[in-house]
Amino acid sequence: MEVVQVLHMKNGDGETSYARNSTVQKKTISFAKPIIEKAVLEILGSTIMGIESMGIADLGCSSGPNTFLLVSHIMDVIHAKFSTVTELRVFLNDLFSNDFNSIFMSLPAFYDKLNKQDYNNGRDPEQHVINPLISAVPGSFYGPLFPRKSMHFVHSSFSLHWLSQVPDGLNNKGKIYMSKSSPQCVLDAYSMQFQKGFAVFLRSRAQEIVDGGRMVLSFMGRPSSDPTADQGIFYQYELLAQALMAMVSKGLIKEEKVDSFNLPHYAPCAEELNLVLQKEGSFIKEHLEAFEVDWDIGGADLDHNMPNGTFDDDQTITSNGQQMANSIRAVVESMLESHFGKEIMDDVFQKYAELVSRHLTNSTTTPKYTVWVISLVKKT
Amino acid sequence: MEVVQVLHMKNGDGETSYARNSTVQKKTISFAKPIIEKAVLEILGSTIMGIESMGIADLGCSSGPNTFLLVSHIMDVIHAKFSTVTELRVFLNDLFSNDFNSIFMSLPAFYDKLNKQDYNNGRDPEQHVINPLISAVPGSFYGPLFPRKSMHFVHSSFSLHWLSQVPDGLNNKGKIYMSKSSPQCVLDAYSMQFQKGFAVFLRSRAQEIVDGGRMVLSFMGRPSSDPTADQGIFYQYELLAQALMAMVSKGLIKEEKVDSFNLPHYAPCAEELNLVLQKEGSFIKEHLEAFEVDWDIGGADLDHNMPNGTFDDDQTITSNGQQMANSIRAVVESMLESHFGKEIMDDVFQKYAELVSRHLTNSTTTPKYTVWVISLVKKT
Repeated sequence: MEVVQVLHMKNGDGETSYARNSTVQKKTISFAKPIIEKAVLEILGSTIMGIESMGIADLGCSSGPNTFLLVSHIMDVIHAKFSTVTELRVFLNDLFSNDFNSIFMSLPAFYDKLNKQDYNNGRDPEQHVINPLISAVPGSFYGPLFPRKSMHFVHSSFSLHWLSQVPDGLNNKGKIYMSKSSPQCVLDAYSMQFQKGFAVFLRSRAQEIVDGGRMVLSFMGRPSSDPTADQGIFYQYELLAQALMAMVSKGLIKEEKVDSFNLPHYAPCAEELNLVLQKEGSFIKEHLEAFEVDWDIGGADLDHNMPNGTFDDDQTITSNGQQMANSIRAVVESMLESHFGKEIMDDVFQKYAELVSRHLTNSTTTPKYTVWVISLVKKT
Repeated sequence: MEVVQVLHMKNGDGETSYARNSTVQKKTISFAKPIIEKAVLEILGSTIMGIESMGIADLGCSSGPNTFLLVSHIMDVIHAKFSTVTELRVFLNDLFSNDFNSIFMSLPAFYDKLNKQDYNNGRDPEQHVINPLISAVPGSFYGPLFPRKSMHFVHSSFSLHWLSQVPDGLNNKGKIYMSKSSPQCVLDAYSMQFQKGFAVFLRSRAQEIVDGGRMVLSFMGRPSSDPTADQGIFYQYELLAQALMAMVSKGLIKEEKVDSFNLPHYAPCAEELNLVLQKEGSFIKEHLEAFEVDWDIGGADLDHNMPNGTFDDDQTITSNGQQMANSIRAVVESMLESHFGKEIMDDVFQKYAELVSRHLTNSTTTPKYTVWVISLVKKT
């Protein structure tokens, strides 16, 4: 699987689209908001000469309601403070198959909204109101994307847990991610792939970010060095593997197909992050913080009454389970579809919704993801 | 009609798609090629310090096989010459509804092709081979698009004949463009709209292009000040208006609908261009040349035998006529559809193909478009 050509969030705005199933990502942006704000204020305040043309990038911008949150937020910060910025260059990045058309179609409305915003309220009327120059840069962030020394602030939310490729030569029978039954070499291969990729990422950005420029990165992680310690991601993929193996039992998928499929996903621990940051050496770590976010089960409480839809094998899908299945489908379907075929997807995700429902019914609390937020400063 | 939101070439790669119906545009790029080459060589040669990071833009890039022609060509020029350029920033611009997704999907193959190209053949092996940094900038070129003083070369092919809006308050009964029967005020309104828009275009680019930077612009024009003098465009739209009026006769479209529709298109004469260039004043005209290009009738010879398909009113569609109708449909359908509705499009363009076929059968030579190619230098 060529990750850079296959991976994309589910397009459009249907029931299982990414646009309608990205609340976990939205919560992450909210959590990161004060950290982003602090980083941007430091940038605006740090340069004695003052920045006139500010470059910002959002890596793994995806498409949907979250896409312009970052830009809006940074515009607010710039306008709230007296700054020398008169030009804001905005670069939205994602892989080649991301739905940029839908981002662009919503741009006129976004520009209209900005124009109506009363940025001058309470501010120096002499100060310029900025219209952002928005562009899209398709390609993998594991490599060069932008002109040298062109960026002041780089943001990435919920993307760096995607590896540039599935680690080579994995022997991970019946599983699609690191599992308690995976041999140690699988765990090591995943860790090494992450470390290698993250170093390339840092080196690429170091070329593009001005000295003193900043990055705020948030992505899934795990709280301890035990690769199966993060129950949120661990069960998410464990149950998806079980759903695929259920298709094998029904003769709908060949077992070898499941054995040969692994997700290019990794949730690093703090030690791995610190190791790569130190070895690569271009950035100073200013802040590293983990927070927890619930599985996207659509509501606040676990639904133990299982009210919705009954299926042939007496499994029941709760609305919690269905919402969680939709939110995972929006993210991983492009990869599963390219390996297992389009026709089996509905069956896989129906089974998955059943398994998630059962898991949630047996849980006393909603499973949680661990998410890292790192704030980095480019060394001078 | 909001032109910036409605106008786009027909997406996809179907029979009537722009991707498969843009040979006239391709011929224009070929004609402009030596003029582009000369302009780029002047840029590379003119700066004593040498340009390290070169910015180029293609305005109205559309999507389809022509999109990367300009980039390839400029890469060839840079690599053929010893230049100081080590970074090529490429900005592809078109309106918000352009099919950027399809451009991006074809980018990995384009990058592969570049990587396989033996640019080092016969060159100084020390010289860097450049990977272009390709980005998309959606929006109207009748306004700011790029950072200040960021561009060295700006190109636009087959786009500047599109106005930013239909002139206000036109009274142009039964016509959709300037016609022999249009009142003088219609002709004047079209001319003023073009002049106003072209001045805004020049002023916007003047902010973005470095001193000594260059533009090569090609777009449809007319050979004399008589607005109906260019037989290529004149008949193209005259026949389309007739096709619409035929729908009125059949009761499929209301006459007022045709009366209230006008195309945001204008083919200027040399005097108008010179006037605006002189009044706006940011650019020196280095070269202005007209060339002629045949209607896209799919082959070299006019087909007077009318071999294909017979229709209910004894009209016959030749393959020439069908091809011409497809090529116009690829360009104007988005606007017609937004005004007259999707369901009538097949009927309109079938009638159009009949009328074009008849026109071609009665012609001794293939009708020709006049196309301007202008080369401009930003004043220092």
